[in-house]
Amino acid sequence: MAGREHVGLLGGGVIGGGWAARFLLNGSDVRLFDPDPEAPRKVGEVLDNARRALGRLTLAPLPGEGSLAFVASAEEAAAGASFVQESAPERMELKQRLLAAASRAAGPDVVLASSTSGLLPSELARDVEHPERLVVGHPFNPVYLLPLVEVVPGARTAARSVERAAEVYRGLGMQPLPLRREVDGFVADRLMEALWREALWLVEDGVASVEEIDDAIRFGAGLRWSFMGTFLTYRIAGGEAGMRHFMAQFGPALQWPWSRLTDVPELTDELLDRLVAQSDAQAAGRSIRELERLRDDCLVAVLQGLRAQGFGAGEVLDRYERLLFERAPAPAAPADAAGPLRLHETRIRPEWVDYNGHMHESRYLQVLGDAADAFFRHVGIDAAYLEGTGNYFTVETHLRFLREVGAGEAVHVETRVLGADEKRVHLWGELMRSADGELLATAEQMNVHVSAQTRRSGPV
Amino acid sequence: MAGREHVGLLGGGVIGGGWAARFLLNGSDVRLFDPDPEAPRKVGEVLDNARRALGRLTLAPLPGEGSLAFVASAEEAAAGASFVQESAPERMELKQRLLAAASRAAGPDVVLASSTSGLLPSELARDVEHPERLVVGHPFNPVYLLPLVEVVPGARTAARSVERAAEVYRGLGMQPLPLRREVDGFVADRLMEALWREALWLVEDGVASVEEIDDAIRFGAGLRWSFMGTFLTYRIAGGEAGMRHFMAQFGPALQWPWSRLTDVPELTDELLDRLVAQSDAQAAGRSIRELERLRDDCLVAVLQGLRAQGFGAGEVLDRYERLLFERAPAPAAPADAAGPLRLHETRIRPEWVDYNGHMHESRYLQVLGDAADAFFRHVGIDAAYLEGTGNYFTVETHLRFLREVGAGEAVHVETRVLGADEKRVHLWGELMRSADGELLATAEQMNVHVSAQTRRSGPV
Repeated sequence: MAGREHVGLLGGGVIGGGWAARFLLNGSDVRLFDPDPEAPRKVGEVLDNARRALGRLTLAPLPGEGSLAFVASAEEAAAGASFVQESAPERMELKQRLLAAASRAAGPDVVLASSTSGLLPSELARDVEHPERLVVGHPFNPVYLLPLVEVVPGARTAARSVERAAEVYRGLGMQPLPLRREVDGFVADRLMEALWREALWLVEDGVASVEEIDDAIRFGAGLRWSFMGTFLTYRIAGGEAGMRHFMAQFGPALQWPWSRLTDVPELTDELLDRLVAQSDAQAAGRSIRELERLRDDCLVAVLQGLRAQGFGAGEVLDRYERLLFERAPAPAAPADAAGPLRLHETRIRPEWVDYNGHMHESRYLQVLGDAADAFFRHVGIDAAYLEGTGNYFTVETHLRFLREVGAGEAVHVETRVLGADEKRVHLWGELMRSADGELLATAEQMNVHVSAQTRRSGPV
Repeated sequence: MAGREHVGLLGGGVIGGGWAARFLLNGSDVRLFDPDPEAPRKVGEVLDNARRALGRLTLAPLPGEGSLAFVASAEEAAAGASFVQESAPERMELKQRLLAAASRAAGPDVVLASSTSGLLPSELARDVEHPERLVVGHPFNPVYLLPLVEVVPGARTAARSVERAAEVYRGLGMQPLPLRREVDGFVADRLMEALWREALWLVEDGVASVEEIDDAIRFGAGLRWSFMGTFLTYRIAGGEAGMRHFMAQFGPALQWPWSRLTDVPELTDELLDRLVAQSDAQAAGRSIRELERLRDDCLVAVLQGLRAQGFGAGEVLDRYERLLFERAPAPAAPADAAGPLRLHETRIRPEWVDYNGHMHESRYLQVLGDAADAFFRHVGIDAAYLEGTGNYFTVETHLRFLREVGAGEAVHVETRVLGADEKRVHLWGELMRSADGELLATAEQMNVHVSAQTRRSGPV
């Protein structure tokens, strides 16, 4: 988007507000029309959420925010705009009127996109001047975070309008999905609606509650769906024999009375051939083993991300890790009490490795710091002590980096106490590769005791 | 699970192998029966994947692996077992036979669970001795990573058997979802099947390809489904007015011809009341604003996790960030060439903050190390140089930690060159809070030039 051209938005609800946030935070000026007097408040709330989310999402340099003006008509929003996005309520006649008004005010080449989640662009374009520039650009809530936009042409839409809309959306960090042709509900909402109707039947029939139905997705298939759709997932489930095998094995289950919605396509040879050919194209030569590892790595990444939020499957992982710590045997007392303590072992995680192919320097300190934490736990600084009495904080660390270490290698730390008085503990840590005992790094740390009450240093 | 009791597994395919991995990696011994001579190879492959995945998932102390024995019959697997899990192919008569055989060999209190994805436990239990201990325990692929297990009682199942199975699964880090009553396909597969059938129609009708259908999920709703089901998502979409408002607004869309599967429950007042009451219970008093932020934080976590894998929405985010860096203006040349260089600015990410509520010591080094990287880029060490000539590696770092810093705070680093010769560069970095210029930490770094060819230190 050029710097000071503006984007015209029609409608400032949850979706329109989401578009406003996407455009503004990417540096575009916005003129927004919404007859609702509450629109500025509503858009402001979405924008607050979006600023917060984007600030957490990326540390890349965001441009300065664009300016937001509320205007009195669709024409005013569209006049001089470089792009128009309509997000009014889902009423055909209302959308037709707004888009027609915008088309009269905007330059003849300016693309008009509708956020409709299911109305056909050919009908939306009925009264639009230069209808070849009308497309559907259907986003998903929250618009400021979810990348998908379905881009749907109508009967009269020009290919260059689809390309232009896709370019605008890519510039906002989104993932346009151009559809070949219009169909009620497009693709994503048809899939979501099918699941949603089945969910309503399960509640109606008293099989499961709203919460149980949500749990049946978010602890299972939903984790996979965050990076892999059903077709690729089922290709993997088919094993080395692939999609044809899967359909042969599980195709018959389609006929089972498993849902209230049992009108299913017949698995003709032609449909089967099409599914197999498209699935081969999607896999792009990757073997089942490669796809399994890709799936597993993505699942691990999603589970670890959610663990930090303590929600959903992340809460399950957190609970599991606590259980593992409870079950773990207490570390054996060192054979030689004066010698080094081996209190911390770990394996180098793939994400600790940087572009050089070896562990990032900050991760050396992380492992050595974890060893120091293990030392303090070993001498009796537990949760109760931390809360009631205090803790040791590092004030100074001297690191030497001696050898590279790669992903997956097992390492451990040997810790020695160099000195201690009533306020300070002086530690020496040696990070070693466990396989051959090679010294990888050393850390000399000065730790000071800090009181839980005063947050200042003080005697133990 | 007690240490040296064993678990009896019937079937060693993808699901049985996944169970074997869950139990073995959590320290249980396993006796597995599968008549397929290929079973040991197949289970071995699943186990390899599981070891790799679990090693990446957690650094918590895993117990020593249990031992795996392949045995010649269901009776041998079940005799002396503390728990039996059956994962044979989805044929009623085969499963009935295996479960009956296991029930004769296992102790009378030992719970028998079937992995079936849709057969009814009342029928599976037909020939089982002590049928009150037969449950369905339906997992999801890959069993060693996905937490969900549906636990389904049959007509004769005792409540304590459901509780015992749930306890075993929780011990494996899983999330049991006990269902009230049996129904063909249970809950999760009914939902997944509804979506899958609609997907097959979309291919059959030529609306979209296999890959486009997968993309319509994984870049949109699928990201939300990894932590939040459809009901809670729609509650949020309903805004402050909540679930009743959402149903009033979008209920009519259920009648639209958006799918081939249009048999939908009538939205009676009774169904509406039930949906609203259950949705209120699920939200547990959290406001829409709180739920929005929870949703956004989880989405950010999932997107960041996937970015590290460079796949799906993570690839989109990666591409967006490159675009932001390309668009960003070049850093201004320092006013005073002899003075400190301010080349690196960032904000403290929430995940850098540890249990003390301030940034982990290793993240201080990460930010100071990133500033040193920025310095080397500033003096002309770019991708071509790294590949063809060499790079500077840190050999020694002396850190002082002066002030705490919390999530969200903007910080920057000022870097000075203390000295340089043909092999070494000696840097001084000061990490400062940008709001008030307060000095948070210092780093003194010695860097040595390493040749790209020899991987050894050498002159520039």
